[in-house]
Amino acid sequence: MSEVKLEDIVSLCKRRGFVFQASEIYGGLAGFWDYGPLGVEIINKIKATWWSAMVTESDNIFGVDGAIIQNPKLWEASGHVAGFTDPLVDCKNCGARHRADHLAGTDSTNLEELTELLKDKACPTCGKKTLTEPRTYNMMMKTWVGPIEDDSTVAYLRPETAGSIFTNYENVRETMRAKLPFGIAQIGKAFRNEISARDFIFRVRELEQMEMQYFINPKDSEKVYEDWRAFAWTFLVDRLGISEKNLQWHEHAENERAHYAAAAHDIYFNFPFGSKELWGTHNRTDFDLTSHSKASKKELSYFEESTKERFTPYVIESSVGVGRMFLAVLADAYFEEEKDGEKRIVLKLSSELAPYRFAVSPLLKNKPELAEKAREVYAACKKKYGNVMWDDNGNIGKRYRRQDEIGTPKCVVIDFQTLEDNTVTVRDRDTTEQVRVSIDDLISK
Amino acid sequence: MSEVKLEDIVSLCKRRGFVFQASEIYGGLAGFWDYGPLGVEIINKIKATWWSAMVTESDNIFGVDGAIIQNPKLWEASGHVAGFTDPLVDCKNCGARHRADHLAGTDSTNLEELTELLKDKACPTCGKKTLTEPRTYNMMMKTWVGPIEDDSTVAYLRPETAGSIFTNYENVRETMRAKLPFGIAQIGKAFRNEISARDFIFRVRELEQMEMQYFINPKDSEKVYEDWRAFAWTFLVDRLGISEKNLQWHEHAENERAHYAAAAHDIYFNFPFGSKELWGTHNRTDFDLTSHSKASKKELSYFEESTKERFTPYVIESSVGVGRMFLAVLADAYFEEEKDGEKRIVLKLSSELAPYRFAVSPLLKNKPELAEKAREVYAACKKKYGNVMWDDNGNIGKRYRRQDEIGTPKCVVIDFQTLEDNTVTVRDRDTTEQVRVSIDDLISK
Repeated sequence: MSEVKLEDIVSLCKRRGFVFQASEIYGGLAGFWDYGPLGVEIINKIKATWWSAMVTESDNIFGVDGAIIQNPKLWEASGHVAGFTDPLVDCKNCGARHRADHLAGTDSTNLEELTELLKDKACPTCGKKTLTEPRTYNMMMKTWVGPIEDDSTVAYLRPETAGSIFTNYENVRETMRAKLPFGIAQIGKAFRNEISARDFIFRVRELEQMEMQYFINPKDSEKVYEDWRAFAWTFLVDRLGISEKNLQWHEHAENERAHYAAAAHDIYFNFPFGSKELWGTHNRTDFDLTSHSKASKKELSYFEESTKERFTPYVIESSVGVGRMFLAVLADAYFEEEKDGEKRIVLKLSSELAPYRFAVSPLLKNKPELAEKAREVYAACKKKYGNVMWDDNGNIGKRYRRQDEIGTPKCVVIDFQTLEDNTVTVRDRDTTEQVRVSIDDLISK
Repeated sequence: MSEVKLEDIVSLCKRRGFVFQASEIYGGLAGFWDYGPLGVEIINKIKATWWSAMVTESDNIFGVDGAIIQNPKLWEASGHVAGFTDPLVDCKNCGARHRADHLAGTDSTNLEELTELLKDKACPTCGKKTLTEPRTYNMMMKTWVGPIEDDSTVAYLRPETAGSIFTNYENVRETMRAKLPFGIAQIGKAFRNEISARDFIFRVRELEQMEMQYFINPKDSEKVYEDWRAFAWTFLVDRLGISEKNLQWHEHAENERAHYAAAAHDIYFNFPFGSKELWGTHNRTDFDLTSHSKASKKELSYFEESTKERFTPYVIESSVGVGRMFLAVLADAYFEEEKDGEKRIVLKLSSELAPYRFAVSPLLKNKPELAEKAREVYAACKKKYGNVMWDDNGNIGKRYRRQDEIGTPKCVVIDFQTLEDNTVTVRDRDTTEQVRVSIDDLISK
């Protein structure tokens, strides 16, 4: 369990413009969140880092960006119309609806097992023992396409981005002249009509996923599976700077696995509400391509030139939620500590993920010569680094506290000595130490 | 009118992996498209360029990333529940449904006017004069949040990203300590249940928008409006490299303007199907903040320190669709020409937008010493530039044609001379001229 309290993170997120409730002025909407100015900078950086590692730096992984709404036949073939369900119970007395598995305190979604576990359970809302037997409820969000609302025009908001990766398998293979093994990667929104949205941005109804499906010869699946497990761990530690002590492996038991998965390992992160899944590596076997081939009557098998074999590729999936990754990054970087006799909150974000690399300030706001020089330094830093913030609000101590809270690695201060020798004070977020640096060095390094 | 044919662009997009029909293997879904490997690289670059110009390079424009599904009260207050409508007619004989304004050949959505224009019109589907009078139809896509499907749980997929910019106005102002003028920018998906999706990715049901709302003192609205018109034009020409001859200004007549707009200028682009809107600059007045303040009972006015005035800010909106911009970039860059006695298709994309900056090839695929050296050069180029493609398919002429079609500015070829003097051939896409360059120069420039 993390020592960071969720309420402290939520409060920081709201106070500093990382995350707001969606439609907050209208009382919000459960399970929906808006990223504010600093949040969106971090999630953009997370997404760019993932895309670079997954697609740009790779020789055989290709990106796609599929529509959120697809032909509903896709979700029939994938098993989501029949199988993407949560077990629910209703209270016959007060009408409240509950997740049966949460109420039973189990990870299982087996209806018989849940019926047994819940048979003497009271409704948590009214306290009466008037719960129905558990039944399944589909979590896909429904809509209609076109002006007529009937069964023939029903469509769903995608429950995972993977769907349009599988339907584009053959298009990508052909247009990119790809040979196995190759992967298709996608970043995009997905929707799950969760009964109980909770834990801030962890369990939400609208989420953003980063998914990569790697198409392989079935005989290679064990090795490739291990490679993608290793990729996920290394990415979190080396690319995002997350501490290994906050990460654990969790292997799915058979009753936890999705209907398509032969093996599944999640990386769990120590969130403030417990150790929970962050990044999944799953062996989806040939389930998806076989199902889509059958339902669409399109050939989705692969001919291996070297061995003259024809087979349906296996798929190793690497899947992570952007919001969960953002929350993990924040929780991992969040510290309350005493420094120089003062309490402070500090986000020890890597400089690649921090919303701003530098904050530039004049020591005193009301000295025109300082302000003017500071504006010059600000413009030069911004030109060089892009994400640089101007900050002349309040006194210098307050500015440092504010920049610590939003994770700015360095504060650059222009003072009277700057006017004489063209050096500035650079204050380090983590050590709070200050060094004098020449403006030329600052801009050219 | 452009000389480029839409069918040629659609065919190139499919053949080279820019755009595929969503769920193509299931027969597609009208109005929904997937971006393939090369398309997603271009749209990512378009979005990154816009974000940089709008947010990163600015001192007073902040990003947000709001949820697609918001509290439905937002869309009541914004006027979309009542006013985001298309005029429709039904055919009483064959049941077909048509856009009344398209059928009448007008831009007007005035029902009386349309009734008059359509009174002797026959149904284009069955030819009978059996059309109903025009009536309005709401274009927002509907869904439900949570397990119960009834009026109390209805929600909409956002019809524009602007909504969550207005609801976050006060949150952003406060957390960023922003003073007028300041802007809020957002990139994200929006949905419109168009009756007739058409013109490839131009009129679609799922689209991605890039919107910026600039909050100002009402007295500055005329000047600021002109500034943002200029911004849009300059961005298209200087940042995306679009030819000015393909762009025109179009001022909205009163009956064309959205319900909230006091003035609206669109930049039209010469698409293959005619000159159509690409980028809108609108003066939304204080309509949005006033409406949301009234509906939410939250104070959204602004106190101007310097003049001690309190007022509701005006909003100048700058709004453009990612898909339309992508299509404009492609249509603008598409040429069929004769070069060195051969016909070719070439995409003259700027090197900032091209999916790949370089393609690296060995002159002959089956010479191991060339292939090995080429792999070395490829690795070094990729390390330096990121988006670099390896291409050893077919003969060199075919490779050039293929790289021309996907807009790769430079082809780097490793031949026998390379092994002797460490120089490579660099072939320019636009001139088709070849020069010899040392590998060191290639990698360090």
